[in-house]
Amino acid sequence: MPLTPEQLAEIEEARSEPRQTLRATAPGMEAHLYTAHPVLDHGLVRVIDYMGDDAAITQAARVSYGRGTRAVSNDEGLIRYLMRHWHSTPFEMCEVKFHVKLPVFVARQWIRHRTANVNEYSARYSILDREFYIPAPDQLAAQSTVNNQGRGAVLEGEEAARVLDLLREDAMRSYDHYESMLSQDGQQGLARELARMNLPANIYTQWYWKIDLHNLFHFLRLRADAHAQYEIRVYAETMCRIVKDWVPLAYAAFEDYRLDAVQLSGKAAQVLRRRLAGEVVTQDSSGMSKGEWREFEAVWG
Amino acid sequence: MPLTPEQLAEIEEARSEPRQTLRATAPGMEAHLYTAHPVLDHGLVRVIDYMGDDAAITQAARVSYGRGTRAVSNDEGLIRYLMRHWHSTPFEMCEVKFHVKLPVFVARQWIRHRTANVNEYSARYSILDREFYIPAPDQLAAQSTVNNQGRGAVLEGEEAARVLDLLREDAMRSYDHYESMLSQDGQQGLARELARMNLPANIYTQWYWKIDLHNLFHFLRLRADAHAQYEIRVYAETMCRIVKDWVPLAYAAFEDYRLDAVQLSGKAAQVLRRRLAGEVVTQDSSGMSKGEWREFEAVWG
Amino acid sequence: MPLTPEQLAEIEEARSEPRQTLRATAPGMEAHLYTAHPVLDHGLVRVIDYMGDDAAITQAARVSYGRGTRAVSNDEGLIRYLMRHWHSTPFEMCEVKFHVKLPVFVARQWIRHRTANVNEYSARYSILDREFYIPAPDQLAAQSTVNNQGRGAVLEGEEAARVLDLLREDAMRSYDHYESMLSQDGQQGLARELARMNLPANIYTQWYWKIDLHNLFHFLRLRADAHAQYEIRVYAETMCRIVKDWVPLAYAAFEDYRLDAVQLSGKAAQVLRRRLAGEVVTQDSSGMSKGEWREFEAVWG
Amino acid sequence: MPLTPEQLAEIEEARSEPRQTLRATAPGMEAHLYTAHPVLDHGLVRVIDYMGDDAAITQAARVSYGRGTRAVSNDEGLIRYLMRHWHSTPFEMCEVKFHVKLPVFVARQWIRHRTANVNEYSARYSILDREFYIPAPDQLAAQSTVNNQGRGAVLEGEEAARVLDLLREDAMRSYDHYESMLSQDGQQGLARELARMNLPANIYTQWYWKIDLHNLFHFLRLRADAHAQYEIRVYAETMCRIVKDWVPLAYAAFEDYRLDAVQLSGKAAQVLRRRLAGEVVTQDSSGMSKGEWREFEAVWG
Repeated sequence: MPLTPEQLAEIEEARSEPRQTLRATAPGMEAHLYTAHPVLDHGLVRVIDYMGDDAAITQAARVSYGRGTRAVSNDEGLIRYLMRHWHSTPFEMCEVKFHVKLPVFVARQWIRHRTANVNEYSARYSILDREFYIPAPDQLAAQSTVNNQGRGAVLEGEEAARVLDLLREDAMRSYDHYESMLSQDGQQGLARELARMNLPANIYTQWYWKIDLHNLFHFLRLRADAHAQYEIRVYAETMCRIVKDWVPLAYAAFEDYRLDAVQLSGKAAQVLRRRLAGEVVTQDSSGMSKGEWREFEAVWG
Repeated sequence: MPLTPEQLAEIEEARSEPRQTLRATAPGMEAHLYTAHPVLDHGLVRVIDYMGDDAAITQAARVSYGRGTRAVSNDEGLIRYLMRHWHSTPFEMCEVKFHVKLPVFVARQWIRHRTANVNEYSARYSILDREFYIPAPDQLAAQSTVNNQGRGAVLEGEEAARVLDLLREDAMRSYDHYESMLSQDGQQGLARELARMNLPANIYTQWYWKIDLHNLFHFLRLRADAHAQYEIRVYAETMCRIVKDWVPLAYAAFEDYRLDAVQLSGKAAQVLRRRLAGEVVTQDSSGMSKGEWREFEAVWG
Repeated sequence: MPLTPEQLAEIEEARSEPRQTLRATAPGMEAHLYTAHPVLDHGLVRVIDYMGDDAAITQAARVSYGRGTRAVSNDEGLIRYLMRHWHSTPFEMCEVKFHVKLPVFVARQWIRHRTANVNEYSARYSILDREFYIPAPDQLAAQSTVNNQGRGAVLEGEEAARVLDLLREDAMRSYDHYESMLSQDGQQGLARELARMNLPANIYTQWYWKIDLHNLFHFLRLRADAHAQYEIRVYAETMCRIVKDWVPLAYAAFEDYRLDAVQLSGKAAQVLRRRLAGEVVTQDSSGMSKGEWREFEAVWG
Repeated sequence: MPLTPEQLAEIEEARSEPRQTLRATAPGMEAHLYTAHPVLDHGLVRVIDYMGDDAAITQAARVSYGRGTRAVSNDEGLIRYLMRHWHSTPFEMCEVKFHVKLPVFVARQWIRHRTANVNEYSARYSILDREFYIPAPDQLAAQSTVNNQGRGAVLEGEEAARVLDLLREDAMRSYDHYESMLSQDGQQGLARELARMNLPANIYTQWYWKIDLHNLFHFLRLRADAHAQYEIRVYAETMCRIVKDWVPLAYAAFEDYRLDAVQLSGKAAQVLRRRLAGEVVTQDSSGMSKGEWREFEAVWG
């Protein structure tokens, strides 16, 4: 269970005290506030705060476009127009702050997105909890044979059992040794900032992560993608569901113009034009490399 | 008067509809929401939205420091500790969005702060209003004789009158020509994106400007400083008053550790140590250049 | 002519002194170094410094991918793979520094790209030169009748002459008054930081602008686009030619996967699939709005 | 020894081929290019590329200040002036690219500096080497008793031996299991992106890290500080020595105005003024908290 009774009590308390505000509120997001969405075996995502809603996006766009914007008659149309034409600044006018609990190896991928504000639990200052990510059996996958950076078939039988045993035992032993090195019982006790180096990358950490909607969409496009590693994708998918409730119009535009979008290179667009004109195009006559042609065919047949 | 009756009606409407929220609220900031603070002759600053309060800063710090933070017993002490030791990430957990109306030459300085989100009125898309900044007589200053980048005495008599006449007349004439080039009355009418090039830098523009508290403090430290140009400083000072009401503990720490702080170089610290030990130090024996010694004496006598 | 004899002499001197270095060098870029490329009537772009070449991109990618990268046998294939799959960090490993002279209204658009380093000529500190952008006759366009943010037909006859006269006369008069307000001849002389407010947006400014290749590509994609305003597009196009000589493989990939690329929304991709299958799709049955359908047909007929 | 024979051969080759360039070169930096500076037991720092030198800083400043800058007669004085007055943009005009090999727990601290470009070795894509950081005996410190985030006395005798044994054995066992899970010998072999989760935080990773001089100085001020963890401080100190050879004037100014500087709060400055006037000030009469007074006395006695 990802949250302690104390944390659950805190959440309940925070959720029981509505306050008055003159700010824009998003009802769909109020319903999510503080509530922990479980992810993986011990992880979670929960919304700590947010700023703005769909109307905040169009309000900012109308500052830019002045009276001229009245031409686009409604918020949905305007939001779709902004998304389609890569006018990103109005989406930056919304902001969200998440509390996330996640394995360290996921955190290391995640942090590469630089346009966010982060406060992470400090293992230099405090002692980490004994919580480790152990994959569920259906996620215990073999190395892909076609993609260096991917998974193949699910491991089975004895191999699967052996891997799970190793992961569990190494995690427990490392943590036991972490504690015994830290201990001040009959010894000085190693500094926390040193002892932590013994802990494996599947230990859980946590952070507050704050980001604007434009940069969050960029993160989600990359991390909710089928090529993203499963362990970060489930966080992105959880956030997608939350964002859909927060800014439904912006999320629908994001889905159509980003998540479901297809990017065609100049060469690929040319091939499609020829096909539409009835021509049969082969890799040879496409101007594309084998790798690119394979990727093109995977989408267009 | 900086706001139209329509805008005032909108503000009144927005302020008359309190909503319920489970988010953190800052009572001092609720009182400012949407209200226009006049700046210069036609400018304004008003808060459109905010996220977080003093407690959001310590909450984020406590995520980082875990159980260890209980040692710092109260929020004020913790906030002062964070500010003193340049722990900036907890301050990034608060966010604010302003609507600002300002002359273009001020906007050009302002935008050099890159860590903010901006939606500016587009003169490519829309037609600018006939509003220009004309300095008040007590701000009509001569070039400084000691500082290339500063002002000296206030202009007086005929020279002052002449300058004000030129500024006013050139502004009006430029705007008249802007309108006549745009006009489609009996002619095609020049494109907006071209006609705007005739407008001088004292014309007003406006934008939404969103920034986190850490970066806002950085902006305010530079722009509320005595060396900042008066026309941007008055905006910074207005924001200082607003931030003080929003996050009073953080603002007090900012005042003590940033606005009122004195930075000593290694050499300057050495001179102070020798003075405290009773030595009389001169520029020659200080190791400082003339310019640096002059700046040092201006602070320490 | 955009450069003074002194500047030309400086360029000649800098170009006449080759030095020895152990760093990567790009022969195509060495040929551009310091040379001024004229843009508009008084503007220019010139390369002041650069870091890296095509090989620096693949070198960085090979750090990330380790021994595994040997699978992609050559630099060109690897660079195309990186561009196709939005692996942007290797492109960030190249950097370039430009000297740009440009009208203020172009500078105001340009600066909205925040991921660059900038040092601009300070009109607070120094006096601007009497140089203004006056459009060439074939760029003196009417407001577009279909796009608020664009140009229509070229102005002709008397209207064109009137506009050019107004732009020239207002520029000259504003500058005369700028000088007369600054003058310390028989008067105190207005502060530079104030006098500059009288200058129109077609006056030229200049800056050093430094950016990494990934962010430069992002800038070029938006500003070399047909929808960008002509006066910034010509700068972007000049830079495109320079970048092509600097990193020919990366530029070719950028051209195919970004400049010439077509972005299909989920709905648009669906329509193409149906068309390829022989179906006749109308706006009604496409699921797209009128505006989106119009944009779709403009590309796909 | 931190580098393989192959890498050493590559370095030798790169260093043996000087090329001609028209760019600014920094002789002190050329001497460092590609050479590996060992750090910790298996780590390293080496310069891969650089842009600019001391003159590039003043050149950029002179673009900003125009003819006015001639008043500051020499490069050293101008660079010190810029540093003293926080004019950071000219320092952004220099750029450097490092290759760094470092333990993962150090990498996790390091990456929090967001204003850099990074390409890290991907353990999703490739297999990590069997290299772990094991502290030297004089760095095996106990938890500080006064600072949650620091080290106390060095561990001795049996406790030290026990800790080193645990760290070494856990590292070796984790790596053995990593290899056995990856192995495709008689089994499918776990995906690399999963197997890596078993590796502890003292395993070495490596990356290319590129940053401008202003942001590098910011990093060095925080990480070469006495309060920084030893394991990152040694990297910062190595870089300080390199930067000193690269831009000697800028580094000297950085040393005096940042590394050796003392920051006084408004209250602390007040206390110094009273002391200089002969008054004996106590914590009670200082207006400072106990913690702040303790820090103040540590510096000023």
